[in-house]
Amino acid sequence: LRIGLVGAGNVGGGVIELLRMNRDLIASRAGAPIEIVAAAARDVERAKSRHGDDLRWTTDWREIAAAEDVDVVVELMGGTGEARECLLAAIGAGKPVVTANKALLAERGDEIFARASEAGTCLMYEAAIAGAIPVVKALSESLAANRIASIVGILNGTCNYILTSMEKGEGSFEECLAKAQRLGFAEADPTLDVGGIDAAHKICLLGRLAMGTPLDFGKVIVRGIREIDSEDISFAGEMGYRVRLLAIAKRDENSGVELMVYPTLLPQGHIMAKVDGSMNAVQIASDAAGETICYGAGAGGLPTASAVVSDLIDIACGRGNVPGDAAPLCKIVPAPEVRAHSFYMRMSVADEPGVLSRVSGILAEEGISIGSVVQREGDGEEPVDLVMILHRNRFGCVLSSVERIGELGQVAGKVKVFPVETFA
Amino acid sequence: LRIGLVGAGNVGGGVIELLRMNRDLIASRAGAPIEIVAAAARDVERAKSRHGDDLRWTTDWREIAAAEDVDVVVELMGGTGEARECLLAAIGAGKPVVTANKALLAERGDEIFARASEAGTCLMYEAAIAGAIPVVKALSESLAANRIASIVGILNGTCNYILTSMEKGEGSFEECLAKAQRLGFAEADPTLDVGGIDAAHKICLLGRLAMGTPLDFGKVIVRGIREIDSEDISFAGEMGYRVRLLAIAKRDENSGVELMVYPTLLPQGHIMAKVDGSMNAVQIASDAAGETICYGAGAGGLPTASAVVSDLIDIACGRGNVPGDAAPLCKIVPAPEVRAHSFYMRMSVADEPGVLSRVSGILAEEGISIGSVVQREGDGEEPVDLVMILHRNRFGCVLSSVERIGELGQVAGKVKVFPVETFA
Repeated sequence: LRIGLVGAGNVGGGVIELLRMNRDLIASRAGAPIEIVAAAARDVERAKSRHGDDLRWTTDWREIAAAEDVDVVVELMGGTGEARECLLAAIGAGKPVVTANKALLAERGDEIFARASEAGTCLMYEAAIAGAIPVVKALSESLAANRIASIVGILNGTCNYILTSMEKGEGSFEECLAKAQRLGFAEADPTLDVGGIDAAHKICLLGRLAMGTPLDFGKVIVRGIREIDSEDISFAGEMGYRVRLLAIAKRDENSGVELMVYPTLLPQGHIMAKVDGSMNAVQIASDAAGETICYGAGAGGLPTASAVVSDLIDIACGRGNVPGDAAPLCKIVPAPEVRAHSFYMRMSVADEPGVLSRVSGILAEEGISIGSVVQREGDGEEPVDLVMILHRNRFGCVLSSVERIGELGQVAGKVKVFPVETFA
Repeated sequence: LRIGLVGAGNVGGGVIELLRMNRDLIASRAGAPIEIVAAAARDVERAKSRHGDDLRWTTDWREIAAAEDVDVVVELMGGTGEARECLLAAIGAGKPVVTANKALLAERGDEIFARASEAGTCLMYEAAIAGAIPVVKALSESLAANRIASIVGILNGTCNYILTSMEKGEGSFEECLAKAQRLGFAEADPTLDVGGIDAAHKICLLGRLAMGTPLDFGKVIVRGIREIDSEDISFAGEMGYRVRLLAIAKRDENSGVELMVYPTLLPQGHIMAKVDGSMNAVQIASDAAGETICYGAGAGGLPTASAVVSDLIDIACGRGNVPGDAAPLCKIVPAPEVRAHSFYMRMSVADEPGVLSRVSGILAEEGISIGSVVQREGDGEEPVDLVMILHRNRFGCVLSSVERIGELGQVAGKVKVFPVETFA
């Protein structure tokens, strides 16, 4: 199998390294050697010095997509512009493609899946979601006999690293982010990660794969982790929860599929709450298999390369997937209609009589039931934190009550609300 | 795809139920309907009353293996006698086979794998190991680009249920076993499970698949959980560990592959220590992907059927696996040479001066270094428990010191030793 590699960054470099490192093993698993015959990089000189000049290097991905001696194109350049052109060109030339580009597939995937389907060409993207964790294969093959009820993922290692650092008392959000950047767990510009966009791309793809939701990225509820502070983590801990950025796709029999990325409280005792540091995990609830969890490295050159090369081996063995008919089977539930098992709500209130009565009065009017309340004793002068767990309800209803509560004179600053996931 | 089903017990019944329950979904994933056309059961009348008489029932699996209208034979009868004949007959007739029979494959698999390989026939056994967890596919496909360093599995739900019940203080081994039997988590005759045999069958197959060890079941170190008592669990807890029955396949660069099933201490904070109740999990350490864990239901009718039907869908889609050349690549390390990171050792000793000195003297002579010691204060009359953690060593060396210690006059009863796994 002769590979044309587009992109020689972290993951591209990992693919080059892995194909060299386990050359014989991979050849025996694939039934034939897998070799990179041409590679495109923005800076060819740097790529040569890093990865050797025995590869045919070019700056132009078009050469790769068109090359007669390239059997499969591996797109690892990232972005949604040229990467799209590259995949379409390769598919147009009848070449199977492998990509790790979740942004492209989630935002412009309809066109790419459709073209691959029309052309009868393999389009593989195991590496696009949760790095080394084989969640695409688990959903499309291992659990193929199951109707999937829900997918709950920790799909962004940067966010999980920051949240677990804060949990361990290693500092504020900003301090933990800076540490993650120093250690290479966060990008210089962390917006896509800490803003939840990256996880949302992934859950959008998983929803399509497992439940047939349309690739309509704008309909995914996305909330990042910037709002979480150490106090939230500490209150959550007191109440028996941990905070993780969860990406959720959940089937509701009546209204469709809920797609959401949100900082979420989950029970300390649940195995998903033990997923620490930069690791990823995906919990899948299905009708026959029950609860399944896959856990592993969600990013990094070699772990992601492991997924890319497994796709290449699948193609070599004739196990590659041609996308099927893309007609969506399920609609995405509109944001206000999405429900959570319960909600964590925290606000800073004046330490004076009558506050709890006004807050709980608004909740009662909105039909929201209160599960538990924590208010620490204050000195009567400084505002104090009021934390509540609210019972199952719709986001729309909870957020409108938050707005009303925020307007109370005794409430200072923003009222925060995060959902609670119990896996029940 | 026309299926001949042999065995209509718990798993066979699950397959019938799942193929009915998700009929359309399965047909769309497989590209064609998957239908059971004939089924064999020991008691046809009971099978008819449970599963309907619209199937062609027989008591004779030979009819199924030979039937012209059967494309694939699914063997779920269990045992190593007739089940072997059944698989060989089906393979001989050129039919792909799917089995959940770990005992048969681990004890007599060489012949079966070889015949399937010669005949170029698919032999699929995802359901034989860890039920719904796709560990066979993870190792043979998802991690195909990796060299596997170790596999650490919780592969027996009965044992895990009993150990976690004991951990929660729900009673002695016997009491928790009885409870597991009442709830259907343990068989009436639990020997294969609590004796570690079932887990050993599974690790034997995983070792072959991932590391190329020979199917030499007699060389697997097997120790069940009968020896574990509540005091062991409590001492382990004090020292920061939990006890699980671990099945381990670990590559040692010099001496081969260690294959072992043993009640083992693992750090409380590790995610594998959170695997509770009847759930299974497999941790795989590999050179590119790093640490991967798969978690899920390891037994039960529908979860196991999920794996069986995923194999059937793979066959329908042309993704079925024909066993390759069976030449073993690695030898199994002889039991005395197997190493553990450290060892837990517990004995009951006379509450008098000089005991610790004699015990530690023997350990020193054997070259075994002591990591930590716990001895609770006694009344000077009753024997007291002496618990030690011993540093990394060979089983042979540790067990011979245990023998010598057991002969000391001040030591009452058996000296227990269990390994510690740190996943480092």
